[in-house]
Amino acid sequence: MATIKDVAKLAGVSASTASRALHDSNMISEATKERVRKAMAELDYSPNYAAQNLVNRKTNTVGIVLPVRENQDSLGNNPFFMQIIQGISSICSENDYMVSLATGRSNEELQKNVQTLIRSGNIDKLIFLYSKKGDPIFDYVKQQKVSCVVVGQAYDALTDHIQYVDNNNFQAGYDAAVFLGQKGYHNIVYAYTDLEELVQAERYEGYQSYIKQQGLRDHHLGLSRVDNRANLEKLQSFLAKNPEIEAFIACDDIQAIRLQRLFKEADIANNRYALLGFNNSLITEIANPSLTSVDIFPQELGEEAANLLLKKILQESQTLIIPHQIIERESTASIK
Amino acid sequence: MATIKDVAKLAGVSASTASRALHDSNMISEATKERVRKAMAELDYSPNYAAQNLVNRKTNTVGIVLPVRENQDSLGNNPFFMQIIQGISSICSENDYMVSLATGRSNEELQKNVQTLIRSGNIDKLIFLYSKKGDPIFDYVKQQKVSCVVVGQAYDALTDHIQYVDNNNFQAGYDAAVFLGQKGYHNIVYAYTDLEELVQAERYEGYQSYIKQQGLRDHHLGLSRVDNRANLEKLQSFLAKNPEIEAFIACDDIQAIRLQRLFKEADIANNRYALLGFNNSLITEIANPSLTSVDIFPQELGEEAANLLLKKILQESQTLIIPHQIIERESTASIK
Repeated sequence: MATIKDVAKLAGVSASTASRALHDSNMISEATKERVRKAMAELDYSPNYAAQNLVNRKTNTVGIVLPVRENQDSLGNNPFFMQIIQGISSICSENDYMVSLATGRSNEELQKNVQTLIRSGNIDKLIFLYSKKGDPIFDYVKQQKVSCVVVGQAYDALTDHIQYVDNNNFQAGYDAAVFLGQKGYHNIVYAYTDLEELVQAERYEGYQSYIKQQGLRDHHLGLSRVDNRANLEKLQSFLAKNPEIEAFIACDDIQAIRLQRLFKEADIANNRYALLGFNNSLITEIANPSLTSVDIFPQELGEEAANLLLKKILQESQTLIIPHQIIERESTASIK
Repeated sequence: MATIKDVAKLAGVSASTASRALHDSNMISEATKERVRKAMAELDYSPNYAAQNLVNRKTNTVGIVLPVRENQDSLGNNPFFMQIIQGISSICSENDYMVSLATGRSNEELQKNVQTLIRSGNIDKLIFLYSKKGDPIFDYVKQQKVSCVVVGQAYDALTDHIQYVDNNNFQAGYDAAVFLGQKGYHNIVYAYTDLEELVQAERYEGYQSYIKQQGLRDHHLGLSRVDNRANLEKLQSFLAKNPEIEAFIACDDIQAIRLQRLFKEADIANNRYALLGFNNSLITEIANPSLTSVDIFPQELGEEAANLLLKKILQESQTLIIPHQIIERESTASIK
């Protein structure tokens, strides 16, 4: 494998000049840098990062911290994480950074893995793909000298100096309700699976804000992720008590498809209620009727998190908001 | 941070003994190793991997090579990759290995990223999450001194010494057809989107093998991933020409849901045809009727790939097959 000396010789400069050119030093002219770059390309030269890491105490890897998964499916079935990781990877690749992952089946395992990453000396930049209050792993990382960006909500925005990238889920819930209102629907239900989950709760609060503004009635319906029988009974009794219902905002696309299935089981025409989901996932096109859904652009969340971390873009606010967009399909035709 | 000397002192052994114990040397008794391990735990000691990497030319990171993604969604919408990565991560974590990712939007970018990983000196073990004929990236990796396991089909099984982990998609397609046969269905269609994709083609060949054995007629129907209008016309004309059709094997769950939607659009009762998919994804439960599907256990694929790479388990065959399993739901009730 070629050394920096080979590069220097081919470029007709000293080894120290080649090294400075390689590190983009201001002391070296653009013309010389170009000569060195050409020689590097010709010799297929790659600097020995590991050796440099020891000397510089600087590294070229970004670590991604995934949330703890309680069961096998929880992450795998959420296409978000893969899309966010893709976004991060593509920006890292452009900037010649490598990407490492920290995962865990428990808080303890995840913390151990994050510690290993940091102590290995290979990582000094991390992106968290979750945020939660009082997270010991996040607290540990803040104590270390590690640059950090969080994809998620800024809980401690006033006390820490970390940057956040997030959707505005409150606004997304509000906009979904406004969209249905403009289509002529006034009796709208928010259907969720777990309001302890921040994203579901925020979308609900956005919905509530619109409902209050308009002097409408707040309807909400919790459905189980597993028990279809109980869901059917719950839905039927809910609709019997609230015959004025015209539309549903589901906490995500999976929940919307669950509702379509329940409508069918309850012998309700598939266009009886307007229906809207979140995530704009692949199933929205296949749903019947095809599903209007709010796209929240997970790949962009990842890209912007990596941009903030690598390019140290200055921004006024601590949280960079990735805009959402309602993708209109058949499930929200204007009221008849 | 604690050093190996601190560990040695607490364990009451010399630094070189502590270091040998740490590296699991045969020269050190199990009792001493246990004492050193306890001291390490007490002092929260972590060896300086980066320094060791330079000395030993050995590293503690497994690199995962993802397939090139031609568009934003291709990987993100496939929960497999995330599940395989989870499987790899959990085994790596148990063995104190870190995980790095190589991704790319083009072959060139992916190759560059794989080269960077290898040359950085941090990686000497790779897991490919794809296999394709004549892949220049795979050829490059084989030339380097990098241990390698492939999740996918063994094309060059005779010429290389690489281990493969895969499902038997031929057998899965065959078993799906047998399953429907036992339920009383004899006029079965294989519905695909792209037979150039190896997995779809292998499942089709498995189906064909059963069909031939039984002296039945081979029916296959290609549907578009995007053009729903064309799909509806194609399905209707296909069913008009082949009124004997009783059941569909879809190349994956998404295709099965696509068929359910088309049946609905064509005013066909949702239990008119038996229907079976592959992947056992989240939507199988929500489908109406709920979808019988062949689980192929992606997390296990990842776990076994990592096991092969890290534990160097000897095995007779070059390909370790992860068994599949048919998960029976409503969509394949016995023939009326």
